[in-house]
Amino acid sequence: MITIQNALIAVGVGEDGAIDYQTATVQIQEDRIVAIQLDSANGNNQNGLESSSESGGEVVDGRDKLLLPGFVNAHTHSSELWQRGLVPPLPLELWIADLYDFTPLDPEQVYLSAIGTAVETLLSGGTSVVDHLVLIPGQERETVAAAVRGYREVGIRAFIGPLIQDQSLPAGIPTKGTEVQVADYLRATQATLELMADVVSAHHRPEEGISVLVAPTGIQLCSDELFQGCIELSNQHNLCRHAHLLETRAQQLLAQEKYGCSAVEHLERIGYLGERTSLAHCVWLSEADLEIMARTRSTVVHNPLSNLRLGSGIAPVLKYRALGVNVSFGCDGAASNDGQDMLEAIKIGSILHNITDPDYHNWITPFEAIQMASAGGAKGLGLADQMGSLSVGQKADLVLYDLNNLSLLPRTDPVGLLVLGRPTNVVHSAWVDGKQIVTAGSVQTSSVERLREELIRYSGYHKDRTVQGRPLVEARYREVMGLPLVHGYS
Amino acid sequence: MITIQNALIAVGVGEDGAIDYQTATVQIQEDRIVAIQLDSANGNNQNGLESSSESGGEVVDGRDKLLLPGFVNAHTHSSELWQRGLVPPLPLELWIADLYDFTPLDPEQVYLSAIGTAVETLLSGGTSVVDHLVLIPGQERETVAAAVRGYREVGIRAFIGPLIQDQSLPAGIPTKGTEVQVADYLRATQATLELMADVVSAHHRPEEGISVLVAPTGIQLCSDELFQGCIELSNQHNLCRHAHLLETRAQQLLAQEKYGCSAVEHLERIGYLGERTSLAHCVWLSEADLEIMARTRSTVVHNPLSNLRLGSGIAPVLKYRALGVNVSFGCDGAASNDGQDMLEAIKIGSILHNITDPDYHNWITPFEAIQMASAGGAKGLGLADQMGSLSVGQKADLVLYDLNNLSLLPRTDPVGLLVLGRPTNVVHSAWVDGKQIVTAGSVQTSSVERLREELIRYSGYHKDRTVQGRPLVEARYREVMGLPLVHGYS
Repeated sequence: MITIQNALIAVGVGEDGAIDYQTATVQIQEDRIVAIQLDSANGNNQNGLESSSESGGEVVDGRDKLLLPGFVNAHTHSSELWQRGLVPPLPLELWIADLYDFTPLDPEQVYLSAIGTAVETLLSGGTSVVDHLVLIPGQERETVAAAVRGYREVGIRAFIGPLIQDQSLPAGIPTKGTEVQVADYLRATQATLELMADVVSAHHRPEEGISVLVAPTGIQLCSDELFQGCIELSNQHNLCRHAHLLETRAQQLLAQEKYGCSAVEHLERIGYLGERTSLAHCVWLSEADLEIMARTRSTVVHNPLSNLRLGSGIAPVLKYRALGVNVSFGCDGAASNDGQDMLEAIKIGSILHNITDPDYHNWITPFEAIQMASAGGAKGLGLADQMGSLSVGQKADLVLYDLNNLSLLPRTDPVGLLVLGRPTNVVHSAWVDGKQIVTAGSVQTSSVERLREELIRYSGYHKDRTVQGRPLVEARYREVMGLPLVHGYS
Repeated sequence: MITIQNALIAVGVGEDGAIDYQTATVQIQEDRIVAIQLDSANGNNQNGLESSSESGGEVVDGRDKLLLPGFVNAHTHSSELWQRGLVPPLPLELWIADLYDFTPLDPEQVYLSAIGTAVETLLSGGTSVVDHLVLIPGQERETVAAAVRGYREVGIRAFIGPLIQDQSLPAGIPTKGTEVQVADYLRATQATLELMADVVSAHHRPEEGISVLVAPTGIQLCSDELFQGCIELSNQHNLCRHAHLLETRAQQLLAQEKYGCSAVEHLERIGYLGERTSLAHCVWLSEADLEIMARTRSTVVHNPLSNLRLGSGIAPVLKYRALGVNVSFGCDGAASNDGQDMLEAIKIGSILHNITDPDYHNWITPFEAIQMASAGGAKGLGLADQMGSLSVGQKADLVLYDLNNLSLLPRTDPVGLLVLGRPTNVVHSAWVDGKQIVTAGSVQTSSVERLREELIRYSGYHKDRTVQGRPLVEARYREVMGLPLVHGYS
């Protein structure tokens, strides 16, 4: 039994639009929240509260601290940590070619970047991570095992969707009717589906905090056969589904070329959408597509920073919300952001939309933003009844923020400043599945010092930055996107 | 004499677009950089380098560190620190009404928020701050003196522009021809100009690191008489000029109502623009206005975060750059951001524009972004020959970043990751005017611990958030902006 005493919690929003805070005592037993008592409430044992002296458990001092449910980092690619800061400002289709040139190829690096991603997510309020995991060719099973090892070591709740495809990179760029030769992808569709079945069998252990998702990269590089195989696997093992969706205008054009309809219509037709499906980006959807997202109860994972960094555009998040579409936040891979800070994603992912609608009544408030990041993230994983809110019976995935930290002072509105400010080193404690893995601002389960040393050992400032992949796709990209043709990149 | 040895510096950009780094030894004598030697260079004493043993001075170990010129936080309002996190998502014209309801009224608070602003600026790479300082009514001189005291204590280079106006708040909202009664402003134009003359006389000491700017808030609340008085004062004392300019669409409408032309045309006509004039925001300028900005060599201060937070829009920064207009970065006041982190402003202020131009050749690179923040900031203050670049003869306003910090690992591209990542606690050392004021990540000149205590002592979570000002302007705002009329704010 753990008893968190005198913590500030946000209980709702008043008629004046201001958040209503209360101090509360929250009890955790095993993996669950078992009691919440508002300190203003009369009487004892409300909501099953036991006195901490009776329970004999641990008492945590929550004074001058804010307790929130943990956020879900609902879309990232952990091994991009090795490439962060490296790729110059380029749109997705060219950025990814550069990315391929600098891919980490050692499973030990994948283990380390999983730890790094978990640590940065935890220290910015996240208790779950959805890792759309890039696989090392020829070491696919080792890649997944390495990431699982990293996440188990740290103790963050992890949802791992091995990033699969069955078409090679140039297939992802529209042709505008030109005949284009595209080499076969390195692995056949059926082999990829077998790989996925093995990964599920070896690693899908939701009760231990490790879940596997089916996660074809997206319509731009995947056949219907691959999507269908993933749907079957998902139905068979009750797995959530994930993919990128219409991140760029080029993908919108490509979908029309491939299917003669929008990507969303196509995904609905083949049965990929639904309550357990979360889709990263969703920038270039039509009004009709928005309706399909709402009707199928699919979740949008908003990755505002990579959408800016790659020039993808602004996802129509206020429209999603108006239609009742569930929206959560992701950091996206660290090569397109280039951090893993959930509070940054939440801040930019909420204020960015204020420029898309002159009526401020539709803007996302800080209170709504944290709900999107916690309850919204949980819902996108089919776990709204299990996590994402501060309620009795939910998983104890909780974060305690230090309100005496300089970046959260002066005392104004704790959630307002957490979301709209630039909080630094503010996570005091974090629990996942009832286990405390951050204490006094430090991760307890894995050595951050060793991580730093290993990151240094494995890396070196890239002297030779010659890129191989970009020249193969740049001319066609510029042509189909209507950009003036130039030689090389300067 | 201070000798910084073995620091990484960014010397330029290669043909492949990658930044060229060298390790270097940099020497500081009094307030100036007196020598820079690239460690790859042959021979001794290049650029006047003395051996540190001869000089007998201090030696700083720059290994695994990046040395950059300090950034200029080129537009902020320091005392908004007291209101950060507080104002809900609202457009400027309503946000400011809420802001007025929670203004700090004690000069001691102004002293503390100047320190807080200086500390957060320094710890995110800034060595100069432009404070468009909100004055406490009736204690205007005390307000300026308090801010000056704070900046002198910390030792940051400060440019203080007392925020002046001579029209009251409702005058800032367009009328669309309706007769509107606006109360007189609390202080007459002439009294304000006398106040400014006093402030210049009392505090303008550029050689001591404190400069006064003339800084009418903007066309929305200032008469031509006030602008003219400021121009005279600026000419008389060689002061830089500052103002807000076309932050919102409402201001664009208002300028047409007031002048029958654009705000930029009007400011050019009255002679306010020029090389020593920096203008915050510049979101709603026409193509003709852009040409005027270029022709007059005025500087744009880009405040990307407040422009998003207040829904003001995206400043056409790529167009400014294409026309050769100097652009620098500001955090803006902490009630509209709500932090003072220069690296955050630089990151968002560069990647935000990738969505405004499909041709990535025009996007701002990380190297260009740091130049905008340093040399661009200096140029906007008429000091390009004095500071903002790492060159012999310039002021020693320098920042040394710890490249072994987790958020700057792995080793990829230091400037790329500094700008595009989410650097946390990365400033190891900072010098202003040759004096070291940050060492090993800590401000040496002022107690951050005491600041924290004072911020706590002066504040308390606002229980009563009843706002007074907003109802006076909200109905008219919604009407002139074409928003559906509603009662109250929910």
